[in-house]
Amino acid sequence: MPLTPSPRSVFGARLRLARLAAGLPQDKLGVKAGLDEGTASARISRYESGIHEPSISFAHRLADELGVPAPYFYAADDELAKLILWFGQLNTQQRKSLLEFASHIKSSS
Amino acid sequence: MPLTPSPRSVFGARLRLARLAAGLPQDKLGVKAGLDEGTASARISRYESGIHEPSISFAHRLADELGVPAPYFYAADDELAKLILWFGQLNTQQRKSLLEFASHIKSSS
Repeated sequence: MPLTPSPRSVFGARLRLARLAAGLPQDKLGVKAGLDEGTASARISRYESGIHEPSISFAHRLADELGVPAPYFYAADDELAKLILWFGQLNTQQRKSLLEFASHIKSSS
Repeated sequence: MPLTPSPRSVFGARLRLARLAAGLPQDKLGVKAGLDEGTASARISRYESGIHEPSISFAHRLADELGVPAPYFYAADDELAKLILWFGQLNTQQRKSLLEFASHIKSSS
């Protein structure tokens, strides 16, 4: 996925990836997130293409509908994006050990 | 840090924490990020209090000035916020082993 540097296009590309992974068409995602049926598809399309950007709270609603942590949309770095996605899929105990491991690595530097 | 649920106030609280950790007053941060001296302090104050929210690209500029990954600002979950911050402080090799550990945990679930 050739990420262009603009933060807004990063957002659009991540949104699109998460939507496709969830198997949702643009209109369905938009309606699930609370948009009118008539404008849902166009609005989501403009977010994905970077023409517009949603408010922070609407971005969180999209993230909730797609089952990804909202920060994922804003991660330009692919490794960080993957880490955020995976964090969202771990249970409480796994998250705890991931944090412990990260803390251990950080303090060893 | 008692995080209120609104995503915009999460952003403001994270921005404030990162700015204080960097030891920067609001006006200095604003000017470093490209705002006019006359409005810098008020603009940053409104972002921190959740009255306004910056564009995605300006949020990335603030993140760059504060030396934190932009996704940090959008993390409501304190553990995820910490993980994102720490990721930003790790070198390439450390990030790689963190990703490997996360992948290992994920596949063991």
